[in-house]
Amino acid sequence: MTDFAAKRGLFHIPDGVIYLDGNSLGPMPVEAAGRVARTVRDEWGEMLIGGWNRAGWMAQPARLGDRIGRLIGAEPGSVVIGDTLSIKVYQALASALEMRPDRRVILSDTGNFPTDLYMAEGLIATLGQGHELVTVAPEDVAARIGPDVAVLMLTEVDYRTGRRHDMAALTRAAHDAGALTLWDLAHSAGALPVDLAGAGADFAAGCTYKYLNAGPGAPAFVYVAPRHQDAVRPALSGWLGHAAPFDFDPAYRPGAGVERMRVGTPPVLQMAALEAALDIWEDVDMAALRARSVELTELFIAQVEARCPNLTLTSPRDPDQRGSQVSFRFPEGYAAIQALIARGVIGDFRAPDIMRFGFAPLYVGEYDVRRAAEILGQVMEDRLWDDPACRTRAAVT
Amino acid sequence: MTDFAAKRGLFHIPDGVIYLDGNSLGPMPVEAAGRVARTVRDEWGEMLIGGWNRAGWMAQPARLGDRIGRLIGAEPGSVVIGDTLSIKVYQALASALEMRPDRRVILSDTGNFPTDLYMAEGLIATLGQGHELVTVAPEDVAARIGPDVAVLMLTEVDYRTGRRHDMAALTRAAHDAGALTLWDLAHSAGALPVDLAGAGADFAAGCTYKYLNAGPGAPAFVYVAPRHQDAVRPALSGWLGHAAPFDFDPAYRPGAGVERMRVGTPPVLQMAALEAALDIWEDVDMAALRARSVELTELFIAQVEARCPNLTLTSPRDPDQRGSQVSFRFPEGYAAIQALIARGVIGDFRAPDIMRFGFAPLYVGEYDVRRAAEILGQVMEDRLWDDPACRTRAAVT
Repeated sequence: MTDFAAKRGLFHIPDGVIYLDGNSLGPMPVEAAGRVARTVRDEWGEMLIGGWNRAGWMAQPARLGDRIGRLIGAEPGSVVIGDTLSIKVYQALASALEMRPDRRVILSDTGNFPTDLYMAEGLIATLGQGHELVTVAPEDVAARIGPDVAVLMLTEVDYRTGRRHDMAALTRAAHDAGALTLWDLAHSAGALPVDLAGAGADFAAGCTYKYLNAGPGAPAFVYVAPRHQDAVRPALSGWLGHAAPFDFDPAYRPGAGVERMRVGTPPVLQMAALEAALDIWEDVDMAALRARSVELTELFIAQVEARCPNLTLTSPRDPDQRGSQVSFRFPEGYAAIQALIARGVIGDFRAPDIMRFGFAPLYVGEYDVRRAAEILGQVMEDRLWDDPACRTRAAVT
Repeated sequence: MTDFAAKRGLFHIPDGVIYLDGNSLGPMPVEAAGRVARTVRDEWGEMLIGGWNRAGWMAQPARLGDRIGRLIGAEPGSVVIGDTLSIKVYQALASALEMRPDRRVILSDTGNFPTDLYMAEGLIATLGQGHELVTVAPEDVAARIGPDVAVLMLTEVDYRTGRRHDMAALTRAAHDAGALTLWDLAHSAGALPVDLAGAGADFAAGCTYKYLNAGPGAPAFVYVAPRHQDAVRPALSGWLGHAAPFDFDPAYRPGAGVERMRVGTPPVLQMAALEAALDIWEDVDMAALRARSVELTELFIAQVEARCPNLTLTSPRDPDQRGSQVSFRFPEGYAAIQALIARGVIGDFRAPDIMRFGFAPLYVGEYDVRRAAEILGQVMEDRLWDDPACRTRAAVT
């Protein structure tokens, strides 16, 4: 049994804050501060260049990849850390397209996070082979899968609505049509059980700064199914993905397995925070986490709907069809979120009118949910969003 | 006048160590430890998601880019931080090739760092348009520049020998032939005066963990000459290079100026270390730094040649033609470097037989140079490299 009450003590949550934005940036694990400080002082400071071997920096991307692999149902040796999610999506997509040379469609949906679509657009232009990015409504994806689809590229859980795709069913449908799949797990890893191997997924990528709590700018990860690893030509063929980087061969030879998806020097300081974050995940039972997440989101929906008639639920009502977040539509959503934040409840806003709340059972409990709904009720009842101070837009929303 | 003796106190150099490997990984600025700790605890810990605005994380890549720009003669607004050097080379090269659609040759040299060549190889395969990577000996580059060359892609200072290209002359020759230039400044930024604007360079990229001392896995930078910025189509079109990332448009529109070369979420913890490192550079006179570097490398060559007849200088003897490092060939170079490291002098080894020593005037002084040469003399005279313990190869050399 995962002791969620005990897990909460492993995070630093500032006094008076109810943090419902871990789907954007997870809070700081208490141990992260010490871990990063030791990496700076005792490793970089004392070992200097020797840290690559003595502190194991060079092996971290594969080692930490395996630790994440356990949380997303990936086979050992199929996940590696590095770069950003955008870069990892590009790598995976480029590889997948090359494995389907006779097809020209990348199928995605309008709920995909924009950077995935942008990276696909950029890749299509670079390839110059007439590929097409087709985006349909999330509910129309299954019907659009056909013999022209090279890659089905989806984010499992919609960043705005929290709607969740059926990874196993869609992967099966894609395979039946001869297509490959690329799953973006940004809102899945650490949010709910994922079973990449069981679903037969081909490629996946995700970030570690949301539910995994590895800190601002934490590196991404990429998954390549073992059956594909040897066939992958890395489009971003950097030296640390080379079979023997320190031979300094002038010609590229891809490394073994998923390590060929490495590109350049790993971000060692960010890796230290990631390691501290993953320590917390070590004994978490993902099924228990999911059950707790569903309890919390159900409770929040019930409480908010009872108090806030002006808000419209835009997340699926059926918990099986959503991730670990709840979103409501409200025309003054931006200002309402600012009013909430001013009262210690941190959620966020996504254009045009979505108020978004993430529920991470590792540090959010029933009391937080009830209290957040109460404060949201107050904001709505007293029209606290109607304060000019809440309407000033910040650069980053 | 830059007070180099005072600068030395701003770095943590472990007791008993003479550090001649800052060309691989610079030592820790004393302030970096506190700066990173504050970013973790006071920004991530206390501001949570609010750090993107309140702590200015989102603006850092351009702000710190400009601070580096001053050190490499770049115009304001022409440098941005992010990713790794491999990724930045890829972006710049892809952009440059698109600007020369009728040409098929990427010209480089055999002294280029392998990852630049690998990334070019990967890009060529992705483009599938019959581009060719031509590598010639460094001294033959000028003669090979011709009307088929789309991009001249060179590392200014050779990572093995320290040989330095004439950036201004080669850029002029490339332009005369209608080609663009991409300069890798990995061993130039912080090592010697660079004048990108004066040389008329088109693109450049570099890393910040060598002479700039920003720590293991510190992010890279990319330069795009102002006259080209609006013409650049970012091949890696990530959301943070979008004109309005937080509008979450489904279609990509490149951001203003060099910011379009941003891709994904910046590595905030690494950025904190970079900022501390750049504070040290704020008042450094690059001409004075260069004069000091030449004194140190000249002294080292003289001292080593007087003591070690078995070592062959492989760096140019003329200081005008080398960077801030000195390399010697020796068949037992690997073991000799291990013997040196065991005696507190940290240099490094590059296959097949190169012993490499970097001289960073910010923390290396004349005493260090004399003492390092003395110890190297001892290693050679007493054949200390002939110790089996020195012959065990580490994963990272």
